[in-house]
Amino acid sequence: MYRESIQILDCTIRDGGLINKWQFSDKLVRETYKRVAQAGIDYMEIGYKASQSQFDPKEYGKWRFCKDDDVKKVLDGIELTSKLACMVDIGRVEKEDILPVADSPFSMIRVACYLRDMDKAIQLSDMCMNKGYETTINIMAVSTNLEKDLDEGLEQLSKSSVSCVYVVDSFGSMYSEDITWLAKKYKAALPGKTIGIHCHNNRQLAFGNTIQAIIDGCDMLDASAYGIGRGAGNCCLELLTDFLKNPKYDVRPILQLIEENYRPLREEIEWGYLIPYMITGGLNEHPRPAIHMRGTEDRNKFVKFYDQMTTPESN
Amino acid sequence: MYRESIQILDCTIRDGGLINKWQFSDKLVRETYKRVAQAGIDYMEIGYKASQSQFDPKEYGKWRFCKDDDVKKVLDGIELTSKLACMVDIGRVEKEDILPVADSPFSMIRVACYLRDMDKAIQLSDMCMNKGYETTINIMAVSTNLEKDLDEGLEQLSKSSVSCVYVVDSFGSMYSEDITWLAKKYKAALPGKTIGIHCHNNRQLAFGNTIQAIIDGCDMLDASAYGIGRGAGNCCLELLTDFLKNPKYDVRPILQLIEENYRPLREEIEWGYLIPYMITGGLNEHPRPAIHMRGTEDRNKFVKFYDQMTTPESN
Repeated sequence: MYRESIQILDCTIRDGGLINKWQFSDKLVRETYKRVAQAGIDYMEIGYKASQSQFDPKEYGKWRFCKDDDVKKVLDGIELTSKLACMVDIGRVEKEDILPVADSPFSMIRVACYLRDMDKAIQLSDMCMNKGYETTINIMAVSTNLEKDLDEGLEQLSKSSVSCVYVVDSFGSMYSEDITWLAKKYKAALPGKTIGIHCHNNRQLAFGNTIQAIIDGCDMLDASAYGIGRGAGNCCLELLTDFLKNPKYDVRPILQLIEENYRPLREEIEWGYLIPYMITGGLNEHPRPAIHMRGTEDRNKFVKFYDQMTTPESN
Repeated sequence: MYRESIQILDCTIRDGGLINKWQFSDKLVRETYKRVAQAGIDYMEIGYKASQSQFDPKEYGKWRFCKDDDVKKVLDGIELTSKLACMVDIGRVEKEDILPVADSPFSMIRVACYLRDMDKAIQLSDMCMNKGYETTINIMAVSTNLEKDLDEGLEQLSKSSVSCVYVVDSFGSMYSEDITWLAKKYKAALPGKTIGIHCHNNRQLAFGNTIQAIIDGCDMLDASAYGIGRGAGNCCLELLTDFLKNPKYDVRPILQLIEENYRPLREEIEWGYLIPYMITGGLNEHPRPAIHMRGTEDRNKFVKFYDQMTTPESN
């Protein structure tokens, strides 16, 4: 009934923070970790590690930086049964921000990169591995790349020591056959490595595409509570946990987390399926213009937005 | 890029009316038809035909009955470029409610039935075909049937003259592999007949499952504006229209319909992805208890509802 090799990574705080600049209360982050761990989720990604020289701590909450001491403080007294992960972007983190794993609460560092930055991503991943961390490389916006460039990047990755590489549907533009095509390509190019999947929900396909990825052999699955995440959000952790028949997972603590925290939070900040995100997803575009228009008084002018997005430009 | 044989049926008013007893204004129904037709949608299902001896017209809106004169009146002056359909339930419609097709605005009558009522469904479908209508038979709640009974029902259908049979995920409990299993079974048992798909969105899989059904050869696709429909609702018409690359469809009028009507309506009546519907879907149960609890003050007590639904009962 289940595949033992499957692992779930909760990205609630990390991807959710893209909406509100990680201005989550300590209580919420603590509650999230507690319920995620109770549910038996394998990893919890608590934010980004980034240099304070690049982001103003007055503007950004502490999960933009993920200082090891802040993490320890907020999780103090909780048994860390879910491994902790954080994400790093190329060029936004300094070597000294990353302590040796023995001095850190983190087990995993995930490197997000565009295909063009593959060399830098492998270098950053190597640096983290040398400090003792598990790493992943998450190739963003892959739906916008030419196949020859992707093949070259995968070839480089195949020679690297990173153990997990992600198929990422950054724009929520993919459907099942896209996932299958990419998952098969990644698996063929990267023998022995785990393939991960990270989906966005612009077209209500985040969960369906994650199921497709499971069918295609992906073993590392990203999801977030109530689907929180930038724009249309992510694959819902409650759906995924409930779907997998693995006895190590229990959906009940996730439902409690949503009942007590994320359903109320959804009334304060916005994510999920909305027409502007469906439009950018269908066009294989970054959700940026949709996020922008949701902050204006034209937030519900769907036809105007559609016309703007689909007006042909001279090339 | 597209399959010419694919047709879309809009079930906005018919399935949406299950939420509010079809108490839609004439203006809304007229607007819906107009935009659906502009979008090039093949069929628009405007309600149920049912006997007024069984439903009180004071309690139920006119789309519970779909009297031909009411339909003509509300669509007066609009060119009927989308064919009109209505649904009938076994035992809820009288022979005299169904006029000969030449006297009626309807082109298609869809018979909804449980597997156990297959003989009655075929009889009702035959009666409608004899009056000149296209018909479909939609086998509801198929996820709760034993395979031997389903095979027997399909065997009966193969000998009938109905031209289209639907795979229906009444409870929103299916995922892609279930759709594939059923679609293949229906296609193999019913050579020469069109297979349809009608999905519910309890687990955010209505659109993904509809895509899977397309891949598996289903050619008649149900969807509704902004996904309106009982409980978690249906496959979103805007997603489906945008996804199919068929030049006969245009998503823009659907976006306008949503902007002007269904987004505002969603603030008055409730449908869509909500945790209680995800729970009943995951359990392969009718959404009834979830719909009920959403009408009580416990509407957001997800854990309590989950515990109620999953407490083992002695059998």
